[in-house]
Amino acid sequence: MLTFYFAPGSCALASLIALEESGLAYEPRRLNLANGDQRQPEYLAVNPKGRVPALVTDKGLITENVAILAYLAQIVPAAKLAPLDDPFAFAQMQAFNSYLSSTVHVNHSHKGRGYRWTDDAAAIEAMKAKVPQTMTESFALIEDGMLQGPWVMGDQYTVADGYLFTIAKWLPGDGVDRDQFAKVSAHYARMLERPAVKKALAVEAG
Amino acid sequence: MLTFYFAPGSCALASLIALEESGLAYEPRRLNLANGDQRQPEYLAVNPKGRVPALVTDKGLITENVAILAYLAQIVPAAKLAPLDDPFAFAQMQAFNSYLSSTVHVNHSHKGRGYRWTDDAAAIEAMKAKVPQTMTESFALIEDGMLQGPWVMGDQYTVADGYLFTIAKWLPGDGVDRDQFAKVSAHYARMLERPAVKKALAVEAG
Ligand SMILES: N[C@@H](CCC(=O)N[C@@H](CS)C(=O)NCC(=O)O)C(=O)O
Ligand SMILES: N[C@@H](CCC(=O)N[C@@H](CS)C(=O)NCC(=O)O)C(=O)O
Repeated sequence: MLTFYFAPGSCALASLIALEESGLAYEPRRLNLANGDQRQPEYLAVNPKGRVPALVTDKGLITENVAILAYLAQIVPAAKLAPLDDPFAFAQMQAFNSYLSSTVHVNHSHKGRGYRWTDDAAAIEAMKAKVPQTMTESFALIEDGMLQGPWVMGDQYTVADGYLFTIAKWLPGDGVDRDQFAKVSAHYARMLERPAVKKALAVEAG
Repeated sequence: MLTFYFAPGSCALASLIALEESGLAYEPRRLNLANGDQRQPEYLAVNPKGRVPALVTDKGLITENVAILAYLAQIVPAAKLAPLDDPFAFAQMQAFNSYLSSTVHVNHSHKGRGYRWTDDAAAIEAMKAKVPQTMTESFALIEDGMLQGPWVMGDQYTVADGYLFTIAKWLPGDGVDRDQFAKVSAHYARMLERPAVKKALAVEAG
């Protein structure tokens, strides 16, 4: 049995969508980040990083969207959530996911989590100002060179699609007009039609 | 044939070590980041992200250490650079690599690349001040819970080891005493003995 720790509005939606796409049974456990649930001793005993997502399997814990996404694709090959038989295509998918986690998500975090990198109140404010620019630049790269269409990897839907959707969902709140990116917007609309995405959003909404 | 773009002192060393461990033939191409080689049109035509590492294969480009590392492990299974037959163990390795790229490397980048996230000179200075603290906190997590020993994943050496070595190499420059982390320091010393690491450092040195 899988137990999945997530928080509404967070990057954990990427792994939540993959769980729904996989068809695996899992028990969702909701955290409220604004209340600081992720810093409570009970949660730190599960995941010492104090972050979501966290997936608890029979063998132990898996953290990090990049790792959870590839794992779910690998353990349910029938769901065809990644190009498992083609190392180059798998690497392309991983590069996409890793760009989202190491660059795009990080750009976004400078809006609400600037205190991670400085204790200076003025600097935290200053960081917020550049978020629309950094998110726009990242999505321009995605629009122009990375999103193959109709899905991230082309004709085959993969776990990268749920991850892109999750971060594209943040754009309006980051002060970025999603409509300026035609392919990203069409992808976003396409994602909203998928039953697994509807289900994941319903689980998030609680 | 593989072509590998790297820069001395950069995170590309992680993938360079994996290349050397794999035994694959490759052509190294050195960039000088201080000179801005990564922003020249010739390099942007190879990798529009303007970053290293970048691995050009017969099928096309792979960026992102996380993706390159798993790719090299997968295409040379005989080198045993990842637990390829155990999705859970593979996910643990990926979680480790993804933590390095999305959190630890990002903490480090706030020392020399703060301009990515703000245009405010005072804020860029303010960010530098917290780097010793954030790097210490990240390495405390690695020391206490993630590095199994003797290698990251336990008894089997994997591509995660070269990545940890690469970032641990930055600690003194980030104002962090590596010796306070006994397991990380022993791992670092162990890495320096590996022929592939010696070779990668020689390639880096040019
Ligand atoms: N690299 C991690 C990032 C995880 C992460 O930072 N999650 C955020 C939510 S989007 C979180 O838990 N934040 C809580 C906090 O910072 O206290 C991943 O992709 O899984
Ligand atoms: N997430 C990427 C990060 C790549 C990256 O930022 N590389 C740095 C060197 S450590 C770089 O190319 N910097 C050049 C620049 O910022 O102009 C990875 O892990 O491969």
